[in-house]
Amino acid sequence: VNKKKTNRLDGQVRIVGVGLLGASIGLSLAARGIDVILADAAPNHLRLAVDYGAGRLARSDDAPTIVVVAVPPDVTADVVAAELAAFPAAVVVDVASVKKAPLDSLRKRGVDTTNYVGSHPLAGRERGGTISASAELFVGRPWVVCRDERTPAWVLARVDDLVLDVGASPIEMTPDEHDRAVGLISHVPQVVSSMLARRLTDAPEAALRLVGSGVRDATRIAASEPELWVQILGANADVVVDILDRFLLDVRELTEALRTLDAPGSRRALAQSLADGRAGVARLPGKHGVDRRLATIVVMIDDTPGQLARLFAEIGDLGVNLEDLRIEHSPGAQIGFVELAVLPEAVASLSDDLTARGWRIAL
Amino acid sequence: VNKKKTNRLDGQVRIVGVGLLGASIGLSLAARGIDVILADAAPNHLRLAVDYGAGRLARSDDAPTIVVVAVPPDVTADVVAAELAAFPAAVVVDVASVKKAPLDSLRKRGVDTTNYVGSHPLAGRERGGTISASAELFVGRPWVVCRDERTPAWVLARVDDLVLDVGASPIEMTPDEHDRAVGLISHVPQVVSSMLARRLTDAPEAALRLVGSGVRDATRIAASEPELWVQILGANADVVVDILDRFLLDVRELTEALRTLDAPGSRRALAQSLADGRAGVARLPGKHGVDRRLATIVVMIDDTPGQLARLFAEIGDLGVNLEDLRIEHSPGAQIGFVELAVLPEAVASLSDDLTARGWRIAL
Repeated sequence: VNKKKTNRLDGQVRIVGVGLLGASIGLSLAARGIDVILADAAPNHLRLAVDYGAGRLARSDDAPTIVVVAVPPDVTADVVAAELAAFPAAVVVDVASVKKAPLDSLRKRGVDTTNYVGSHPLAGRERGGTISASAELFVGRPWVVCRDERTPAWVLARVDDLVLDVGASPIEMTPDEHDRAVGLISHVPQVVSSMLARRLTDAPEAALRLVGSGVRDATRIAASEPELWVQILGANADVVVDILDRFLLDVRELTEALRTLDAPGSRRALAQSLADGRAGVARLPGKHGVDRRLATIVVMIDDTPGQLARLFAEIGDLGVNLEDLRIEHSPGAQIGFVELAVLPEAVASLSDDLTARGWRIAL
Repeated sequence: VNKKKTNRLDGQVRIVGVGLLGASIGLSLAARGIDVILADAAPNHLRLAVDYGAGRLARSDDAPTIVVVAVPPDVTADVVAAELAAFPAAVVVDVASVKKAPLDSLRKRGVDTTNYVGSHPLAGRERGGTISASAELFVGRPWVVCRDERTPAWVLARVDDLVLDVGASPIEMTPDEHDRAVGLISHVPQVVSSMLARRLTDAPEAALRLVGSGVRDATRIAASEPELWVQILGANADVVVDILDRFLLDVRELTEALRTLDAPGSRRALAQSLADGRAGVARLPGKHGVDRRLATIVVMIDDTPGQLARLFAEIGDLGVNLEDLRIEHSPGAQIGFVELAVLPEAVASLSDDLTARGWRIAL
């Protein structure tokens, strides 16, 4: 099989920065037989990425058709400008998680941005670095492409080719739309989760024994890398501050309602705030982009290796497609709960069938 | 087999209020052969709970040894007082999610609380009601018991018997310790998650297409019932307001650092805030109460019924115990990721074994 036949990209692809994103793009394209050139300011990272098979070292006669800049947000504009100058025939695309700051910075220094397109693959993880890279990182993920009114069609097409070749779905947005969107669905949740987790720093040990999945989920992303997030938040500061100001107003209003609970209107204001939150979370799309409520069944399992295997084998036998699932353990317990999310119409029969096979359904 | 032999409780148990908690306690005790008497202000709920097998209707000659009050927080003290008067020989225990307010209220009206013990099983769910009840709801969960310096040993022992008979683990705390603990690990996370989700009410549709597991997890509990939460927050208002005031200070400090990012010290303050959040989340206990970091492997799966079954069967074959797992789907994708959490020492061999069996490891 000639893998190259299905590629949209042709010619050399140069990747500057071999962290999680850069190395993953390299692995994906190299696996498709594309000639990938790697560059990085850190020689040991570069060697590691080459060893991983993400591409080869640069040569003096390189002539890339596209350059991917995958460096931290605060140096993105510098590197984009340098690459545009070094490879004037190439399209230069960056993958930074903010889009307005690099573009503004390029324009301020008078760089011709005709061949530049900002982009952002929504494929980060809590763990970064070359060592976490994967050829499959972008498969099925959205990848924002920020065209400009002046971006030529051939330039945009080449970026779309890159996105499609690594398996992602291109979504067109303006830099403003993008930065506002990630502010809402990524940057502010990060801040809020971190500040909620900060309250746990002085929690008594006894309180921590009562922890359930609620606070655990609400603070999960607070485990992310502070240094990277200072850069991301800093590069989208206007948007994040604007949303945080609104968030602060909401929390202050709720706190005041709670402080003066017996004043007229306080309970109603509190209920309305919480109802608004419920309406907000209901807007998040479910699997396959469909905004629908799944039904769940909770099965009890013993804490032994064979249990999950048997449960999933039997669910497979029953021909039921799991939409989502979650395992919950209580501290100190030798028993766990598996919450199975399925289409509402499948609940009754799945519950009956599992009970018939001897599983204990918790609720 | 005579089930009664293993019971700690003896005599009749009366349960007032047949919502999720009351009906679940009834189901659990009735299944052990205990004579459970049910009462509820709503006759249709009461009939449903009896039909479910959670207990029987009251009779004029009932003589319960313990009465469980499982009614909403704002009527808990009223019902406790009435039950203490009606059954002076019985121990009366409530299961409300706040503990100081009911006790203060009882003392204010001069009720003799010798036979009363406040308690709180940490076993709620987003869904409530008789219909969600389960005999297994409390198995392995912590159950806070708030003894008083004047509580006689035999009274406390009877409450512990109840907790142990339904499979939970009693944890002794004072009402103040309890309310502070649930304020931190349940009530404030609920408020913060709701107010974060509230920001999504006016998010553009395009932004929602970029949603990943981060914001989804951070806002999951915002789907809870607003009316119940008004009561819970109202009954623990002092504690929640106190923690929210600190939270507001933290978020305001971070917002100001972000607003004046180029001022001396701003970036350092921002990094320190985020690092504190990371330290907070690291304090949450893992499975089995152990505070350790698990290692994870991400496996790609096709979106077909047989895939999960095969994956878990093979993990079972390999004798590896999964500590936790999570399924992640991208909107519109026919492919998903299963993140397997295992002990760090099991990662390398599991990764190799799964790859050898043809699974694609994403990172």
